[in-house]
Amino acid sequence: MIYDVLIIGGGPAGYRAAERAGHKKMSVVLFEERSLGGVCLNEGCMPTKTLLYSAKLYDYAKGGSAHYGVTSTGAKIDHAAVVARKDKVVKTLVSGVAAQMKGAKVTVVSASAKIVGKTANGFAVAANGETYEGRKLIIASGSAAVVPPIPGLKEAVAAGVALTNREILALTKAPKKLIVLGGGVIGLEMASYFNSIGSEVTVVEMMDKIGGPSDAEMCAQLQDIYTQRGVKFMLSTKAVGVNGNKLAVENAAGKSEIAADKILVSVGRRARTAEINTDAIGLFTERGAIPTDEEMKTNVPGVFAVGDVNGKSMLAHTAYREAEVAVNVIAGEKDVMNYNAIPSVIYTNPELSSVGETEDSAKKKGLKVKVVKLPLQFAGRYIAENDGGKGFIKMLLDQDGIIVGACIVGNPSSEMIYGMAIAVERKLTCKDMAKVVFPHPTVSEIFREAVISQI
Amino acid sequence: MIYDVLIIGGGPAGYRAAERAGHKKMSVVLFEERSLGGVCLNEGCMPTKTLLYSAKLYDYAKGGSAHYGVTSTGAKIDHAAVVARKDKVVKTLVSGVAAQMKGAKVTVVSASAKIVGKTANGFAVAANGETYEGRKLIIASGSAAVVPPIPGLKEAVAAGVALTNREILALTKAPKKLIVLGGGVIGLEMASYFNSIGSEVTVVEMMDKIGGPSDAEMCAQLQDIYTQRGVKFMLSTKAVGVNGNKLAVENAAGKSEIAADKILVSVGRRARTAEINTDAIGLFTERGAIPTDEEMKTNVPGVFAVGDVNGKSMLAHTAYREAEVAVNVIAGEKDVMNYNAIPSVIYTNPELSSVGETEDSAKKKGLKVKVVKLPLQFAGRYIAENDGGKGFIKMLLDQDGIIVGACIVGNPSSEMIYGMAIAVERKLTCKDMAKVVFPHPTVSEIFREAVISQI
Repeated sequence: MIYDVLIIGGGPAGYRAAERAGHKKMSVVLFEERSLGGVCLNEGCMPTKTLLYSAKLYDYAKGGSAHYGVTSTGAKIDHAAVVARKDKVVKTLVSGVAAQMKGAKVTVVSASAKIVGKTANGFAVAANGETYEGRKLIIASGSAAVVPPIPGLKEAVAAGVALTNREILALTKAPKKLIVLGGGVIGLEMASYFNSIGSEVTVVEMMDKIGGPSDAEMCAQLQDIYTQRGVKFMLSTKAVGVNGNKLAVENAAGKSEIAADKILVSVGRRARTAEINTDAIGLFTERGAIPTDEEMKTNVPGVFAVGDVNGKSMLAHTAYREAEVAVNVIAGEKDVMNYNAIPSVIYTNPELSSVGETEDSAKKKGLKVKVVKLPLQFAGRYIAENDGGKGFIKMLLDQDGIIVGACIVGNPSSEMIYGMAIAVERKLTCKDMAKVVFPHPTVSEIFREAVISQI
Repeated sequence: MIYDVLIIGGGPAGYRAAERAGHKKMSVVLFEERSLGGVCLNEGCMPTKTLLYSAKLYDYAKGGSAHYGVTSTGAKIDHAAVVARKDKVVKTLVSGVAAQMKGAKVTVVSASAKIVGKTANGFAVAANGETYEGRKLIIASGSAAVVPPIPGLKEAVAAGVALTNREILALTKAPKKLIVLGGGVIGLEMASYFNSIGSEVTVVEMMDKIGGPSDAEMCAQLQDIYTQRGVKFMLSTKAVGVNGNKLAVENAAGKSEIAADKILVSVGRRARTAEINTDAIGLFTERGAIPTDEEMKTNVPGVFAVGDVNGKSMLAHTAYREAEVAVNVIAGEKDVMNYNAIPSVIYTNPELSSVGETEDSAKKKGLKVKVVKLPLQFAGRYIAENDGGKGFIKMLLDQDGIIVGACIVGNPSSEMIYGMAIAVERKLTCKDMAKVVFPHPTVSEIFREAVISQI
């Protein structure tokens, strides 16, 4: 049998592509060597959010509610119970994906897949001792945590002292002292969780700011908040070696050593291409990732690369949309990927959410933007729910008053930012947005306040 | 001196109109007899949200976190402290409005205002023994709680047994037993608060459903949830008399009496027109409210009516937009009011949020709509944060696939619904929305799932 589409990888990119292709009546095989849902469902987005929600509840219980007239004593968090619940949530989600695959009549092959080569009608992929043939091939093999070549780090990983996102989420005992190597999204979220539940956390970051490409001022606010809560940040600091339970670091102040029970390695992720034999069909790779055009096409006609493996955005929601574009293009429908309106969230407490340009990205592109900055205290509901909160938003406007970016530090911004993604994607102006009625009282009204202040 | 605009009423309609007019360099007088911010800031939206947030924290502390691995003992809520904090929040907000008025160079007159009549150049309004003249007049005198002509109710109000929103928010001691007369938004929010803090609550509602015009299925779910928490609902039940601390009711089962410490009267609100002498300039009123056209014009040229006083929507956020439309029209800019995309929220726990058409409203208008209904369990983050949650969304599509309405029961829907207001206001189709990337994992993604399921 020749399938319409073969898909390598069952994470967000792969399962969404499979579901969409199935929905369009294509015959589909989805290869996944570990668990359906990929890193996102099993050892990324979803498990961390489960943990972080428990931490948020614990923050309230610990005394974060006293300002609001609510008190309790003897607050406790049971990390093992939190992890057990996380496992349950993951199981529910994985079954959900399995059910979705069944509903879309997708053949799921639970085995690692390798590209064999081109065939007369398409492509051959081997898995589990069998060979599958498909007219089109979608590569969605995802990414893996980078373990940088720091002397002693490989040994520390083998010894269970250094952990990636995969292992740290399986810990049933919280480390007393935790070093987080890399202050990006994953690092900050885990630092936030372990800080909440009582671990002593040190974040070591090579750059002079945390939070990766997120707005510098917002990241600085997050850093202040977590510093007050006891997290130690070492910026512009390089890890130079691991010796037993000690991390050697180097910065302007010189060399020093930090001791810890565990070291989380969260310095970045690399596309997984070496594992799937891309050479068999002459696929180009660039620093390990597969370059794609706006239709998600690779250099080999009939082969698409979606999700982390193309190295473009490495976010589950980007993967969803890329998968949809690829399937639409395969189905002969016009569709292209737009990377100008991709939201991103750091799920700390408070959350930091962004979409579109930042001041920094606009500057790099030579875009002239106007920045509207407002404190969240301008939204009554924020005052009602955040005693002493210092959150704020920035909205970026181009010269025609079109909203090209927005970011916000404050809760529950992760659930609010999609509206700004609509604005950026649809190229709405302040005048357009001013006609939209926002419910009162909400924190989200702050976006409308920003817009109204400009007309 | 002749002012450009006189504005009667300093609630959301009035203060927004004043700020906008000031921003456009008009000279403005704003009359407010009580406190700037009106009912919304002083005895409505904002105070209730402050209380409800404390209640939510108390719900967690009481044991609502055990599922998530977090426990505590001896949870307490101090109602008097909650009310004291509410007063502080209100004070902050009122000062914020005062500062805004100052910034917009608005003259604020703290006195009740009465229309005197027309003048050669416009209109005269008397307040505090002085007469003010203005070229345009904006009426934003708001609304007051209706106290229906139920035998004994007036006396119960005088005795402090029956309360409106104003008095109940000032109570520093929680009633042991509370009757909520009227299961609309205000009634449900107060029922929710007092149920959380331990009062025995009975909701008496004349209609066969709670929640006013909100989606019937969602209101039924709210009713189920609160019934499980101990609230008693008496639907299709009429209040026929008050005798001391007892409310006499009548329904299909016959007549009965319910005893309570306090009775909240939340059966509706009436426009405040009798108080401001509308006859002096021949203003039409209809059942007490001032009819307006889409430019917020009344029957008298130069006179506008915005906010609750026109009886159209009676929501603070509608008032904001109406105020903006009126000021834009006065400034000679083209603008019209659209009531098709007004969101509304019931701030119970969970929240119920809506925008645009409901199945019921569509049916009444003869609109053919397709209803897409999805459980929130389809959004991973909802599973992570809501053990056993049964929330859901409905999205209503017209025959061209345009989103004409959406509603959602679940948290934090109040902060999510504005994005759907953008969709309805901008007449976006499912195909348009499918191109928007939503952050993962969020509850808001459920809207995208609904959209994707239709293309």
